[in-house]
Amino acid sequence: MAAGSSGDLLTRSQRLAWLRLIRSDNVGPVTFRQLLNRFGSAEAALEALPSLARNAGVAARLYPPGEAEAELEAVEQNGARLVALGEPGYPPLLKHISGPPPLVTLAGGDNLDWSRTVGIVGARNASSAGQKMTRVLAGDLGAEGYTIVSGLARGIDAAAHRATLKTGTVAVLAGGLDHIYPDENVPLAREIVEHGGALITEMPFNWEPRARDFPRRNRLIAGLSRGVVVVEAAKRSGSLITARLALEQDREVFAVPGSPLDPRAEGSNALIQQGARLVTAAADVLDSLAQADPRRKALFEPDWEPEVGDSGGDPADATMPSHDDRTRLLEALSVTPMPVDELLAATGLSIPAVQTLLLELDIAGRIEWSSGQLVALRG
Amino acid sequence: MAAGSSGDLLTRSQRLAWLRLIRSDNVGPVTFRQLLNRFGSAEAALEALPSLARNAGVAARLYPPGEAEAELEAVEQNGARLVALGEPGYPPLLKHISGPPPLVTLAGGDNLDWSRTVGIVGARNASSAGQKMTRVLAGDLGAEGYTIVSGLARGIDAAAHRATLKTGTVAVLAGGLDHIYPDENVPLAREIVEHGGALITEMPFNWEPRARDFPRRNRLIAGLSRGVVVVEAAKRSGSLITARLALEQDREVFAVPGSPLDPRAEGSNALIQQGARLVTAAADVLDSLAQADPRRKALFEPDWEPEVGDSGGDPADATMPSHDDRTRLLEALSVTPMPVDELLAATGLSIPAVQTLLLELDIAGRIEWSSGQLVALRG
Repeated sequence: MAAGSSGDLLTRSQRLAWLRLIRSDNVGPVTFRQLLNRFGSAEAALEALPSLARNAGVAARLYPPGEAEAELEAVEQNGARLVALGEPGYPPLLKHISGPPPLVTLAGGDNLDWSRTVGIVGARNASSAGQKMTRVLAGDLGAEGYTIVSGLARGIDAAAHRATLKTGTVAVLAGGLDHIYPDENVPLAREIVEHGGALITEMPFNWEPRARDFPRRNRLIAGLSRGVVVVEAAKRSGSLITARLALEQDREVFAVPGSPLDPRAEGSNALIQQGARLVTAAADVLDSLAQADPRRKALFEPDWEPEVGDSGGDPADATMPSHDDRTRLLEALSVTPMPVDELLAATGLSIPAVQTLLLELDIAGRIEWSSGQLVALRG
Repeated sequence: MAAGSSGDLLTRSQRLAWLRLIRSDNVGPVTFRQLLNRFGSAEAALEALPSLARNAGVAARLYPPGEAEAELEAVEQNGARLVALGEPGYPPLLKHISGPPPLVTLAGGDNLDWSRTVGIVGARNASSAGQKMTRVLAGDLGAEGYTIVSGLARGIDAAAHRATLKTGTVAVLAGGLDHIYPDENVPLAREIVEHGGALITEMPFNWEPRARDFPRRNRLIAGLSRGVVVVEAAKRSGSLITARLALEQDREVFAVPGSPLDPRAEGSNALIQQGARLVTAAADVLDSLAQADPRRKALFEPDWEPEVGDSGGDPADATMPSHDDRTRLLEALSVTPMPVDELLAATGLSIPAVQTLLLELDIAGRIEWSSGQLVALRG
């Protein structure tokens, strides 16, 4: 494995527990992490979920053990694997995003360099000039040893993957491993794996991607990349979302300029006006990534890696909040996201009590987190 | 007059003396200023020139009075005027460049706003898209009350002038007023003046522009403009020289981006990489110029304006340096430009002595100034 992370592998039953937990209703990456911190293991969190949900007035809907078994088997039968955060094969840069997926499904990519990566994204209705630019840029970055990450969409994405089949390419999917979108890129997906590249997704096997899964996928493209290059992008396009997510995760953002008369250049020109680096050739990207930026040092240092196995918090220790406490917290919450500190001040509750109550409300689907920092009632 | 400057008008004989002095051999704008500071008037400087040149071992070549008379008459017969630095009609922004021309020949432009100005320059072999972009940009800036300055070249320049005939446009010439280049733009030059726009040049009437006059002209385009927009520009083009001169004079530089596959966009893309503002529409320029930048405040405050008439230094006061002093200074000079402070330290001579010797060497064509600050022997 090229990832170079130092964690141990999960046992099969631990992996199944992780899979059940992340696939259970209202458990996203942030909640997953809170549950693991709180209960010490996925198994213990699964046991605690029903009573947490009940406390918030709903019934927990857990991912059935049989479905988790079936998913794991299907993944393995497709020559792929489920890799957990903290395991050696987990992409190192992805650990450092806000809310990294606890599990990714990964096909191929065993010998890729997952730490020297550049994302290249852009318009589906790319011009032939945009596609040519992509081929040249991706090809040159690939020749310099960079792995190219993209979203397997039509246009720029497909051009970026095709230009780097031989040097290393990663396609991030918005659906399950068996739901390549668009259909026309199914052969390209196969070629990517055959050439040693990778397909990666955080979505369940069998998952058909919906519109809202694409921005979520874009977060992984940015998260897997040291920098993201936007080649052609209209205003309000998915590529601009990827660029914004890249900035939020402290990655470099690059954009290829175009004539202001070409609507496909509006997004990339706007990015440059907002501070993205203007790219005319691979050298612009290489120079920029080669400059050690101390602010980005954190990307290459270890961050949160869950201990594999049982450790951490003991559920018996948890302070059990009262019904009054719950009412007080609900009154303090609103649809406007607010920091937990403010909730503590507003309610006068203890930290463990607020943590427990928020976890319950989270499991019950009644609150949502922004960036893992701010919490709000669902509107 | 719209210029709003507060100086008096020169008398006819003063104007002729200014003209003779600036047209005499080896008297550029910087030397002109030094001579005026030193001798108090153009008339006195003209009287002193022969002995200054003789001291440096050459014969002064003064512009004959008859030629100055003939030039002034030709200018006036063409409906134009010779405007001196410090006179009310002198373009206000031009006063603040390093080495402003002591005299400009100006046709038309009486009612132009010379202080709200944007330069627009670019490739002669402009694409139709580049020309369209220029028309839109110049037209919109003109509609917002900005006067558009350009160089009357083919391509972008001509498109910028044509789009602003009705709102106000200034064409800066590399040759004399009667030497419009290229020929195909003679009708455009006429239209500019007919519509109330201006032609302006620092070169003598009858002067046929040579290659090296164009960078010199570009300095005036930048100097007349609050900001300069480069629309299409190849690498190593005149437009990039204009942009560099604009930066040196602390003016805004803007560039319209283009596809990296288009060689006509190389220059403007490179400018953006170096910090020029990316422009897709007039609003980008307007927003930027509307922001009061304290560093640029000096542009709108009075700078050096020579007193018109006799005043200032008295030639009789000047310390006359010895032959030894001259030898010492020549030994200290080299082809590498150096500040005058270093020459003072190296020679141990007094400030007036060094000033006198440098002026003599300047008149003799043996030294050259960079930005009026650094001095070097001519190579």
